[in-house]
Amino acid sequence: MEIRTDLALEAKELDTDNTEGIKLNYSTYNDIKISRMKIITDSASNRLKKEKGTYITIEMDAIDDDITHADDKIYAIANELENLLPQKGTILVAGIGNVNITADALGPKTIDDILATRHITEDIAKQIGLEDLRSVAAIAPGVLGQTGVESSELILSIVKRINPSAVIVVDALASRRLSRLGCTIQISDTGISPGAGVGNHRMPINEETMGIPVIGIGVPMVVDAVTLAADLLEPNDEQRADKLIEELTPSGNHMVVTPKNIDVLTMRSSRLTAMAINCALQRSLSKDDIIALTCNS
Amino acid sequence: MEIRTDLALEAKELDTDNTEGIKLNYSTYNDIKISRMKIITDSASNRLKKEKGTYITIEMDAIDDDITHADDKIYAIANELENLLPQKGTILVAGIGNVNITADALGPKTIDDILATRHITEDIAKQIGLEDLRSVAAIAPGVLGQTGVESSELILSIVKRINPSAVIVVDALASRRLSRLGCTIQISDTGISPGAGVGNHRMPINEETMGIPVIGIGVPMVVDAVTLAADLLEPNDEQRADKLIEELTPSGNHMVVTPKNIDVLTMRSSRLTAMAINCALQRSLSKDDIIALTCNS
Amino acid sequence: MEIRTDLALEAKELDTDNTEGIKLNYSTYNDIKISRMKIITDSASNRLKKEKGTYITIEMDAIDDDITHADDKIYAIANELENLLPQKGTILVAGIGNVNITADALGPKTIDDILATRHITEDIAKQIGLEDLRSVAAIAPGVLGQTGVESSELILSIVKRINPSAVIVVDALASRRLSRLGCTIQISDTGISPGAGVGNHRMPINEETMGIPVIGIGVPMVVDAVTLAADLLEPNDEQRADKLIEELTPSGNHMVVTPKNIDVLTMRSSRLTAMAINCALQRSLSKDDIIALTCNS
Amino acid sequence: MEIRTDLALEAKELDTDNTEGIKLNYSTYNDIKISRMKIITDSASNRLKKEKGTYITIEMDAIDDDITHADDKIYAIANELENLLPQKGTILVAGIGNVNITADALGPKTIDDILATRHITEDIAKQIGLEDLRSVAAIAPGVLGQTGVESSELILSIVKRINPSAVIVVDALASRRLSRLGCTIQISDTGISPGAGVGNHRMPINEETMGIPVIGIGVPMVVDAVTLAADLLEPNDEQRADKLIEELTPSGNHMVVTPKNIDVLTMRSSRLTAMAINCALQRSLSKDDIIALTCNS
Repeated sequence: MEIRTDLALEAKELDTDNTEGIKLNYSTYNDIKISRMKIITDSASNRLKKEKGTYITIEMDAIDDDITHADDKIYAIANELENLLPQKGTILVAGIGNVNITADALGPKTIDDILATRHITEDIAKQIGLEDLRSVAAIAPGVLGQTGVESSELILSIVKRINPSAVIVVDALASRRLSRLGCTIQISDTGISPGAGVGNHRMPINEETMGIPVIGIGVPMVVDAVTLAADLLEPNDEQRADKLIEELTPSGNHMVVTPKNIDVLTMRSSRLTAMAINCALQRSLSKDDIIALTCNS
Repeated sequence: MEIRTDLALEAKELDTDNTEGIKLNYSTYNDIKISRMKIITDSASNRLKKEKGTYITIEMDAIDDDITHADDKIYAIANELENLLPQKGTILVAGIGNVNITADALGPKTIDDILATRHITEDIAKQIGLEDLRSVAAIAPGVLGQTGVESSELILSIVKRINPSAVIVVDALASRRLSRLGCTIQISDTGISPGAGVGNHRMPINEETMGIPVIGIGVPMVVDAVTLAADLLEPNDEQRADKLIEELTPSGNHMVVTPKNIDVLTMRSSRLTAMAINCALQRSLSKDDIIALTCNS
Repeated sequence: MEIRTDLALEAKELDTDNTEGIKLNYSTYNDIKISRMKIITDSASNRLKKEKGTYITIEMDAIDDDITHADDKIYAIANELENLLPQKGTILVAGIGNVNITADALGPKTIDDILATRHITEDIAKQIGLEDLRSVAAIAPGVLGQTGVESSELILSIVKRINPSAVIVVDALASRRLSRLGCTIQISDTGISPGAGVGNHRMPINEETMGIPVIGIGVPMVVDAVTLAADLLEPNDEQRADKLIEELTPSGNHMVVTPKNIDVLTMRSSRLTAMAINCALQRSLSKDDIIALTCNS
Repeated sequence: MEIRTDLALEAKELDTDNTEGIKLNYSTYNDIKISRMKIITDSASNRLKKEKGTYITIEMDAIDDDITHADDKIYAIANELENLLPQKGTILVAGIGNVNITADALGPKTIDDILATRHITEDIAKQIGLEDLRSVAAIAPGVLGQTGVESSELILSIVKRINPSAVIVVDALASRRLSRLGCTIQISDTGISPGAGVGNHRMPINEETMGIPVIGIGVPMVVDAVTLAADLLEPNDEQRADKLIEELTPSGNHMVVTPKNIDVLTMRSSRLTAMAINCALQRSLSKDDIIALTCNS
């Protein structure tokens, strides 16, 4: 029974004493805790089962009921994103996952609120009072079972067509701790690995496969039921573990632990993520503009 | 840490040796297992924390991908329902729960597929070739936080207005075992108790409060996270239990274990429930009519 | 070929010279035009085919893209509503129409954003800093074909149960002029008449049937195709009219003219209507509170 | 005031006497009327404002309430499609239009029900008893305003990546006659032209731009309000026309005539289209398989 987490910070916690190959520092933005972790060596990468690179974890009290008052959260996330992005060129935002499965819908639902601007000419932008708009394209590639095309293939084909300077990939994550659901955001320059996220993505979406920087951003929406159980059990009870795995995956179904109102969590998390991305990409707009453009779409 | 289940059969399993006040017998319908349990005495009712009355549990392999081929399941459920319903008079079908919370949406989603006929006059029924239609009304009363009116109050006010001979109440349930999610149906003549179901309903909906027979029908959609943990722990570890409950209800949030694709489970379970109810109420229609009327609504 | 309109002001325009039995005056709220028309005599009521009573028409430029900046519109509507409502007692807001038919969904979609408070006790209200909340219940009664129960019956049964001091009924309207779609609001103390609105409601919902004041509020979402055609034709061409009616109602289908993006119109109109009702009923809340509570629901 | 139609057959009707450059023949499939029109010469193409190529029009009584009984319609459409498609290679089905605008949602909603198989290996297909599956990919490219990427660009980038042997493009159409809405299907080897359909697509999607055969398939969902009016007016009344165009496009809004229940029409039309495409592409499956796979997705 394996403890699964998509959060590098939690992977580190499972492996506490060993700091070889890892750099970790902390800061705050108002009351929001920000951790920056670098996985530097191959051995650290193997130990933590995370790609080498930078992982930023932003921990909030909770995603507020009222997204229109969430200023600090929006800026805390936007600032980190901005630091990882190239300053020029089109940005492609891709929201992966299955919009019909609430726990996996963060990616496509975020895309619904992204301000796509690539098609707005400079002349039109000036006319509507929005100069200095950054060129943004926004795509939800769907899921393999419904399209017959891998998300990574589809994103790559668009990258080749529109030549962005970077990709932002949004995905729903799994964490180890229930207390993190919906109130932790991970941003990473390693993109998305196979097997990460709530859905099943077979191929990595990262700088190596796309040829340009790929920033991953995600919010944990579920804890795997097997992970929850593994945390509860005595570590050496192997016989019981075998029986439990059968119980915890009846007929092979993947069971997850979520808040009862995961629907609300997904809605709020995707709005916050979209606003933070819009804010990072369109620095010429005020926060009020961002909220109005995002909430009224 | 309490083990919670809305299934009387599971409550009985937690209390195995004692058969005082309980009658239990089994049958099958083709390959489908049907248990009929009667809770007869007050002491049995207290022990099991279930109202006195009849509880029928129908256990299926799984709700099929393909509801149009689910003949046996539809008839197995319809037969049991029919036995509990009065033979004459209007039937009010009420689907309780929150349509915006996937795990709690079984009730209102079932209502979407119920064939409401109370407004069809005999003359019109004859014209469209549907004689012998039974009078049916179908209501989703919503949730208190959105309407300001208790589901039970709303149902009672309609009962007083339209004078049905019985009410069928549909609700999403919680079970103890993950293996039962979406593939067990409980039918009971005790209606719905306060605190049962996935949502929180404060007042009972039963023969006593409504003044007419109330048949409850439900499908387990979740296992409480606390119930899953309680099942995994040594019974006497009280200190650990206290700490766990905090972890399992972060910031007081109600956590549940579900299949990742609870959305599909809810859709299929509500369709099957609606078809079985339609089938029990409209015996003059063929199964093909029922499927066509239900699937094309 | 009959010209159909649910707006009393347009009915008046079709009958221009005759002012018998009608009182009409105008005002503005900032740039918003407000007409108040009283139909006083039976003969005026017959001529205009509108019940005797007061009809307030609020004409706006357009429902803005950005509802969070729509201050003036919200207050213009809220002020008029407030004048027609009793100062004390529970208000029942009922949104009629079919949520699955975009042009008819204004009522139920408005209900989604109404702040229901009837279940919030004074103690709880104080705790969350919301003293002086007015008691509000909010119901979408659905449509006869799906429930088997008339909207009016269902509303009446709830009125009898919860004893409100007044009912606000929200419904999608039909107008004569395309230019009014989505940017005119009619408020009336006559409630809702049979045959009005986009759907088909058989029984009136008014003070006579409910026993308490009933305020109707609606936004025109469609122009009947027959009305559009009638406006285009020479009045005396009866032969052509017969043929046209056949063309304009193929296989008996009711055809309507709408903006291509009626979906957006319905969304914005229902939000604005809900905010104005929330604002009229909860005068202790600021506009920012109203927007936050409405937009984040 | 221009009469607009996306149906080549209606364009022909507007230009009745002249058969230069046009070949037209008729057949039936059971009771369904099928017209096959070839536009051969440039002058015919200019006269009709339709690209040179083959246009097949299938006229049905109505899209039935009950899609599970729609056998003849499914086969009539599937047969015509099959004749236009290459016998080998992957087929890319692309559904264009805006899923959030009901009148424009035919394309993306059809994609929801397309059986995508490109990712199913031969081994897996054998295991699940589905040998001889044809490789199909299915994409809804979204709309420019939401993605920043033209539908045609996105489709072309996928074509280059997955090398299909042909593209099927599904789009909502505008017709001249209300009686055709939802019950006529046009299939064409000319793909999709700029300015056709309910939405606004700037670039053609055809064999020239994609480099492989492109089959367009569409169902008329609206009549333009201007087209309806133009049909009603005396041809020479130019003054009135000017005033009318202003009335018919208030504030520049595009007004359309639709059945009140366009939502139902879109749902049924997209299901029928998807079933016919699935049927044409997967000849190894029975109609019952097709219906079950499509309706239970």
